[in-house]
Amino acid sequence: MKKGKFNAITDVAGVKVGHVTLYEKLNEEDTICTGVTAILPHDGNIFEQKVPAASFILNGFGKTVGLVQVEELGVIESPIMLTNTFSVPAVLQGTLEYMLKENPAIGDATSSLNIVVGECNDSYLNSMRLMAIKPDHAIEAILNVKSGPVEQGAVGAGKGMICYGVKGGIGSASRIAEYEDVQYTVGVLALTNFGRKDELKIKNWEKDNLEKPDGSVIIVVATDAPLSDRQLKRIAKRAAIGLGRTGTTVSNGSGDIIIAFSNGYTIPHDASEMTDTRTLLHDHHPMMNEIFAATVEATEEAIYQSLYHAETTVGRKGRVVKSIHEE
Amino acid sequence: MKKGKFNAITDVAGVKVGHVTLYEKLNEEDTICTGVTAILPHDGNIFEQKVPAASFILNGFGKTVGLVQVEELGVIESPIMLTNTFSVPAVLQGTLEYMLKENPAIGDATSSLNIVVGECNDSYLNSMRLMAIKPDHAIEAILNVKSGPVEQGAVGAGKGMICYGVKGGIGSASRIAEYEDVQYTVGVLALTNFGRKDELKIKNWEKDNLEKPDGSVIIVVATDAPLSDRQLKRIAKRAAIGLGRTGTTVSNGSGDIIIAFSNGYTIPHDASEMTDTRTLLHDHHPMMNEIFAATVEATEEAIYQSLYHAETTVGRKGRVVKSIHEE
Amino acid sequence: MKKGKFNAITDVAGVKVGHVTLYEKLNEEDTICTGVTAILPHDGNIFEQKVPAASFILNGFGKTVGLVQVEELGVIESPIMLTNTFSVPAVLQGTLEYMLKENPAIGDATSSLNIVVGECNDSYLNSMRLMAIKPDHAIEAILNVKSGPVEQGAVGAGKGMICYGVKGGIGSASRIAEYEDVQYTVGVLALTNFGRKDELKIKNWEKDNLEKPDGSVIIVVATDAPLSDRQLKRIAKRAAIGLGRTGTTVSNGSGDIIIAFSNGYTIPHDASEMTDTRTLLHDHHPMMNEIFAATVEATEEAIYQSLYHAETTVGRKGRVVKSIHEE
Amino acid sequence: MKKGKFNAITDVAGVKVGHVTLYEKLNEEDTICTGVTAILPHDGNIFEQKVPAASFILNGFGKTVGLVQVEELGVIESPIMLTNTFSVPAVLQGTLEYMLKENPAIGDATSSLNIVVGECNDSYLNSMRLMAIKPDHAIEAILNVKSGPVEQGAVGAGKGMICYGVKGGIGSASRIAEYEDVQYTVGVLALTNFGRKDELKIKNWEKDNLEKPDGSVIIVVATDAPLSDRQLKRIAKRAAIGLGRTGTTVSNGSGDIIIAFSNGYTIPHDASEMTDTRTLLHDHHPMMNEIFAATVEATEEAIYQSLYHAETTVGRKGRVVKSIHEE
Repeated sequence: MKKGKFNAITDVAGVKVGHVTLYEKLNEEDTICTGVTAILPHDGNIFEQKVPAASFILNGFGKTVGLVQVEELGVIESPIMLTNTFSVPAVLQGTLEYMLKENPAIGDATSSLNIVVGECNDSYLNSMRLMAIKPDHAIEAILNVKSGPVEQGAVGAGKGMICYGVKGGIGSASRIAEYEDVQYTVGVLALTNFGRKDELKIKNWEKDNLEKPDGSVIIVVATDAPLSDRQLKRIAKRAAIGLGRTGTTVSNGSGDIIIAFSNGYTIPHDASEMTDTRTLLHDHHPMMNEIFAATVEATEEAIYQSLYHAETTVGRKGRVVKSIHEE
Repeated sequence: MKKGKFNAITDVAGVKVGHVTLYEKLNEEDTICTGVTAILPHDGNIFEQKVPAASFILNGFGKTVGLVQVEELGVIESPIMLTNTFSVPAVLQGTLEYMLKENPAIGDATSSLNIVVGECNDSYLNSMRLMAIKPDHAIEAILNVKSGPVEQGAVGAGKGMICYGVKGGIGSASRIAEYEDVQYTVGVLALTNFGRKDELKIKNWEKDNLEKPDGSVIIVVATDAPLSDRQLKRIAKRAAIGLGRTGTTVSNGSGDIIIAFSNGYTIPHDASEMTDTRTLLHDHHPMMNEIFAATVEATEEAIYQSLYHAETTVGRKGRVVKSIHEE
Repeated sequence: MKKGKFNAITDVAGVKVGHVTLYEKLNEEDTICTGVTAILPHDGNIFEQKVPAASFILNGFGKTVGLVQVEELGVIESPIMLTNTFSVPAVLQGTLEYMLKENPAIGDATSSLNIVVGECNDSYLNSMRLMAIKPDHAIEAILNVKSGPVEQGAVGAGKGMICYGVKGGIGSASRIAEYEDVQYTVGVLALTNFGRKDELKIKNWEKDNLEKPDGSVIIVVATDAPLSDRQLKRIAKRAAIGLGRTGTTVSNGSGDIIIAFSNGYTIPHDASEMTDTRTLLHDHHPMMNEIFAATVEATEEAIYQSLYHAETTVGRKGRVVKSIHEE
Repeated sequence: MKKGKFNAITDVAGVKVGHVTLYEKLNEEDTICTGVTAILPHDGNIFEQKVPAASFILNGFGKTVGLVQVEELGVIESPIMLTNTFSVPAVLQGTLEYMLKENPAIGDATSSLNIVVGECNDSYLNSMRLMAIKPDHAIEAILNVKSGPVEQGAVGAGKGMICYGVKGGIGSASRIAEYEDVQYTVGVLALTNFGRKDELKIKNWEKDNLEKPDGSVIIVVATDAPLSDRQLKRIAKRAAIGLGRTGTTVSNGSGDIIIAFSNGYTIPHDASEMTDTRTLLHDHHPMMNEIFAATVEATEEAIYQSLYHAETTVGRKGRVVKSIHEE
């Protein structure tokens, strides 16, 4: 299938990505090697104009925040944030502060706010127990967002991540679903921190002996196709298929979580009108299968992109995780 | 809240209900005391014009058929059928035959068909192992459907059912959700076969000693409010609250299953158009809470209606289950 | 059914509850009126000896943290924390710090940690946007836990909560499930912040006109019955029935979330043994229905206890919410 | 990983498979080209000794029967039956008759019975609307079960199925999960009827232009590892990964359903004892990942086996679907 202009999640018009990366060797024992990544679903006020969304939990050994409300209401109303496991509270706090400042009515004249934060455990390279990420880093990541090419590899939340025994991190890709003269874009951004060396499909590597927990992966799928929350859950499941193609057997300790949203239309927070009108894709139209295929392909490639872009990284205790290009 | 004209599921315009009731004492041991009930979501061709739908499984000790596809696609495309547990195959068969005759393209030029059949175990009164229901009884129930008042009590699928230790069966009720000058109707039909005597809220009865399995309840909620499948799942959960108000603690062996649909709009089978346009209720509009309340109230009353209308019934082995009015 | 000694969640041996309550009028506009409540499932190290657990989302308009992993692995491995909506990050942070200190291997030699935090929106009385709760308050709540009578009403996380138009907060109750000579205890603690005045079953009140969001309720069910995670999900659903009995129709904006755990056995973090052996309750044994009934009853009473114990409270902007005894 | 002796689901000791195949050209238009496949989880009385089980719905465009109760109670208590979409009622009926005969108490002195039937749509080759399968064919398939090598390809329920544009049907494979001196077997049987020609990973085929619905796949995973229902759901999700590896992007109309069970222990129907004791695998033990990997591998190979074994088949309207070896 065709790729979008930047082969990235930002090919879905309006989607922006921002990173904050922290890297500092503190002493022989400790190194800060982590970060935050923010994904904005569209250009406007996300709380006022929510995007339809859904998630699929392939393996729930993970601490992602915010999915209860996404499941109930079928919308995301905040930036989607990614970070390390122990920085979820700080990123939640920072994102909350950002959103409260931007929306003075939240928690006062109107209801509260649901924030989505995904995480992976980067404690092999990062001194995660030191919790170096502060709320301001989350705000900074949000302020850093931009459209166009996405910085990938050992950057943002991906700074300390390990995938298939080599350096992983942030990867992104996109595909164009086409039917006759209509085109929709599917973009994926993955935070990759999973898999054993011998599982990686594109190499013939032997088992590694990294003494590390199983790791996780967070996959965010964006599209401009006008899909309902139910349909976005279908999309999220297809991302699991794309992930599986890269070789993983989804190990016990891996929090493999997929979040899918569409910005093809938005749902207003304001409910002064009793109803609103949407034009949605028909499940049985051939375009749906094109979008499914685009999701599988873009996810698979986003995983690989995270490997291709990640550089050899030295972390805590002097641990080195090599780039796929150097292994 | 206000009730609809017939205080029944048929107050939702287009919804029709039909029964077939079998009752015959075969010998000292065996009595056929069972039936089939059909609910049609609207007047037209249901396969061609599907209705948005969802289900909620309060307690899944039950054999309801068809919910996998309802969950995936968010639609019902056939009559909703109710019967006893061992007659699910026959009712499925009969409904399939009916639908195939009505839709020559199914299973030939177009895709297959999903049928929803709910059931409760009427084996205390009915010689259920004899499987007296035949496929034609299902077709007959569909042909029997009508709008207007719903026959309730020991009728159709409710013929052999027992609820709170007295005769149960079919009950129905409706409520009007109102906001300013807009009105939507919520109608409920329940097949009641659950509960111990001492649980019934409106009586101060002691424990019964019926030697029977826990029983089940199937609740079908219809509305003309334009709700998505996700919103209909929310509705289905509220029906569980209405059920709970009557006293049950949802015993282990009770298959307590709720199916909710809207005929406020339909979704065409034909997917020659890539998209279709819907006007849906806003979750945060006050009307949604009115619909929730209507669902709770109508469900609670539908349960009670099944008791009020059911007459004392003699079943297999000469077993007698009394009407609530005679107990 | 019989109640436990303290008619509280602490009747389940080993369960402890601790509160931190903040109350300070800052100026005419702002008042801090909120808190934190901690529930410890047992006396030992919860990370090392996890408890089987499950959740049920009756209405997912809520920000509860930690349920993804509870669903996947069927265990809780941290204190269960309750607070206001905007203090989830701080409580998550504090609990994380507490657990990391107690367990030096987490995030270093062993895997990461899943923390469960439930919340309700107390912004009618509490200046929630000021985020007065700090991480240390969570730690303090954990250190405050004790067995025996539970302090209820306008205390801990319940300080600023409103239920059925009057002062709500923390409520607790327990029931004994008995069969022959075996007894199990079911204890419930509820954080109540839901419902309109006219919905409350035990009063004949008219509609209130509080200008507040719909509110929420978090229900924690504890038992010493040896139940699997699947069985605990069944328990959690019964708590919804108990909640419904008090009158609510589960409004759109109410995050109604139930968490159930058993401390009848524990599951070791250490996996050096390939298997472990458990003795579990048989689903079809009559005791299961006793436990279901105990859950419904204890939940219903816990809601009411939150009302009976809560005192009239003055919050931000001088708003007054009356005790049920003064209304 | 190592394979079992027969590289089939029957490598899990006690599991047996039986087929009934119908093939008859009726006239130029119609051909009966279909069948039934039965899988018995163990040698004993399955109703009396149930097996722990779970399912995962990758894509719910399907009519599989019986999963509501599997989800609630975590057990399978009947043979697992496979057939074509329109024969679900007949197979359900036949299996019910078989089970009632074998268990005189069902529906009389004890509770009812849950039967699991999976299906795919074979209407391209089979005159499915004629519903040639009768209840007795289901009984015959059950009576045909045997251990040892499994007949694969265009046989049983697989007779009329099409996979990746060539002849599919029944495929099976197994893998041994090993850790130190402990071994568990994972066996898979798949009924394959999905995928477009150009999707098949192991070929470089172009798009086909078969005018047929999307098709489906039913995957049954068996193991002797002592897993809980929750753990079996984890297994079922891994089968989806194995399926994805063969190339599919899980098209809209494909009912892709996975059922997993363990016969490593059984759960008695008789509940005269309040509890029973089980030895279960620890989720965090390395063996779990071995079982996950075994599931992925065995599923992937089972799909391919269905292609390798299936012969070119002529169906209704003279339609020919070629063997993969002839394409």
